[in-house]
Amino acid sequence: MITVGIDVGSITTKAVLLNGTTWQSLLLPTGCSPRDAGKSVFEQILDRASLSPADVDCVVGTGYGRISLPFIDKAITEITCHARGALHLVNGTDMVIDIGGQDSKVIMIDEQGRVINFAMNDKCAAGTGRFLQVMAAVLGADVSDLADLARGAEPVQISSMCTVFAESEVVSLLAQGVSKERIISGIHRSVAGRVASMAGRLGRGRRITFTGGVARNGGVREFLARELGQEVTVAPEPQMAGAIGAALLARDRCKH
Amino acid sequence: MITVGIDVGSITTKAVLLNGTTWQSLLLPTGCSPRDAGKSVFEQILDRASLSPADVDCVVGTGYGRISLPFIDKAITEITCHARGALHLVNGTDMVIDIGGQDSKVIMIDEQGRVINFAMNDKCAAGTGRFLQVMAAVLGADVSDLADLARGAEPVQISSMCTVFAESEVVSLLAQGVSKERIISGIHRSVAGRVASMAGRLGRGRRITFTGGVARNGGVREFLARELGQEVTVAPEPQMAGAIGAALLARDRCKH
Ligand code: SF4
Repeated sequence: MITVGIDVGSITTKAVLLNGTTWQSLLLPTGCSPRDAGKSVFEQILDRASLSPADVDCVVGTGYGRISLPFIDKAITEITCHARGALHLVNGTDMVIDIGGQDSKVIMIDEQGRVINFAMNDKCAAGTGRFLQVMAAVLGADVSDLADLARGAEPVQISSMCTVFAESEVVSLLAQGVSKERIISGIHRSVAGRVASMAGRLGRGRRITFTGGVARNGGVREFLARELGQEVTVAPEPQMAGAIGAALLARDRCKH
Repeated sequence: MITVGIDVGSITTKAVLLNGTTWQSLLLPTGCSPRDAGKSVFEQILDRASLSPADVDCVVGTGYGRISLPFIDKAITEITCHARGALHLVNGTDMVIDIGGQDSKVIMIDEQGRVINFAMNDKCAAGTGRFLQVMAAVLGADVSDLADLARGAEPVQISSMCTVFAESEVVSLLAQGVSKERIISGIHRSVAGRVASMAGRLGRGRRITFTGGVARNGGVREFLARELGQEVTVAPEPQMAGAIGAALLARDRCKH
């Protein structure tokens, strides 16, 4: 059986092709048209596998752009898809922490990957990848280099949670001569702190899996673990959790 | 009797000298030292009135920088000072809406200008002067020109409340060719909407007085009135409400 999951996020669009037990993945920037991005990843992933749409048994779409995909069989919410994907990626997961480019979510799941409870922030840039991007711009750094730049530094206290006010704080910390390493470490702690308090309100996980683009940042992971007082496992291919979950749910759907 | 009120805000520092029933005012940028700014406005306002510190019966400090003023007789919270100042500026005021450079507050007061209830936002840049500043920068405009630039235009919908996400929305509205007038009008409505909802949670005023630096923006005032379905009166010298209240409270204090 061949299924495809497509996750159209605000910044990147992901596709996963599931063929029996093997899977392939593809990631493209969403750009300004979620519909075109969704179409592109679908075509390209089929192309790479030398398949045509007719070979695919079921396509599930997820992510904020899922409603603009005319070719999918079903649209399923990100929460449901992420939960399923994270459990597949890390056995035994009961709490998923996902930090994406513009949102963050915490999901408690049962042994089947079903959602028990969740919390989500997509209203405020603090505690999302966007916070890191704004800060990287102020520091003249690339967001993907932040973790390396900070490595090992004692975090400086950034007292404003708000991205805009924190940006001014960072400017004045730089002017005061505080090292970039310590500032970046403080930035990582800020993101982790915001998301950890959202997680804390939901409860306590025994096995916490970290997904989303920000999960590639080891600094944020470390502070999440410190704040929660627990181990936090980064999912392999953390950005793919939603698309993998979508592909798995597509497979379940076809079986019935 | 001569009293002085000093309001050290995040962006500007204000002094009011009250001599019997006449008053003089002065406003300076706070810069990076609230302490120096407070000292400067105090010295300069005395200088202009040809007075020395010994001529002053009582000095009250307010605003976020009030604690760093060694020469004051008493520090009183912004909420208390604003309430008193607004009632003095506009007779009959029972609700004060203050929008400053980095915060916003709504205060319900009784006939003596005493605080019955209040709400404040100093955590989130949305619904404060900072939101307007960020947007003015994106539009390449001066924040003091926004109201003139928007005049009469139908507001475009800005769906994100968050300053950071709204900034991206404005960039893409500009790219779509939406007029600056409509965008600025939408920005004014966003600020007003955020503060109006804070006011709505407190109750309903019969006489609403608008103070703070943002009260000079007629566009925000208009949308506040629309959102609240009531008249909103801009206080004369709206930025001085806190310092005037401080000077009046200093007078009360000396009487006892
Ligand atoms: S706190 Fe800052 S980042 Fe969060 S919604 Fe408000 S403006 Fe946006």
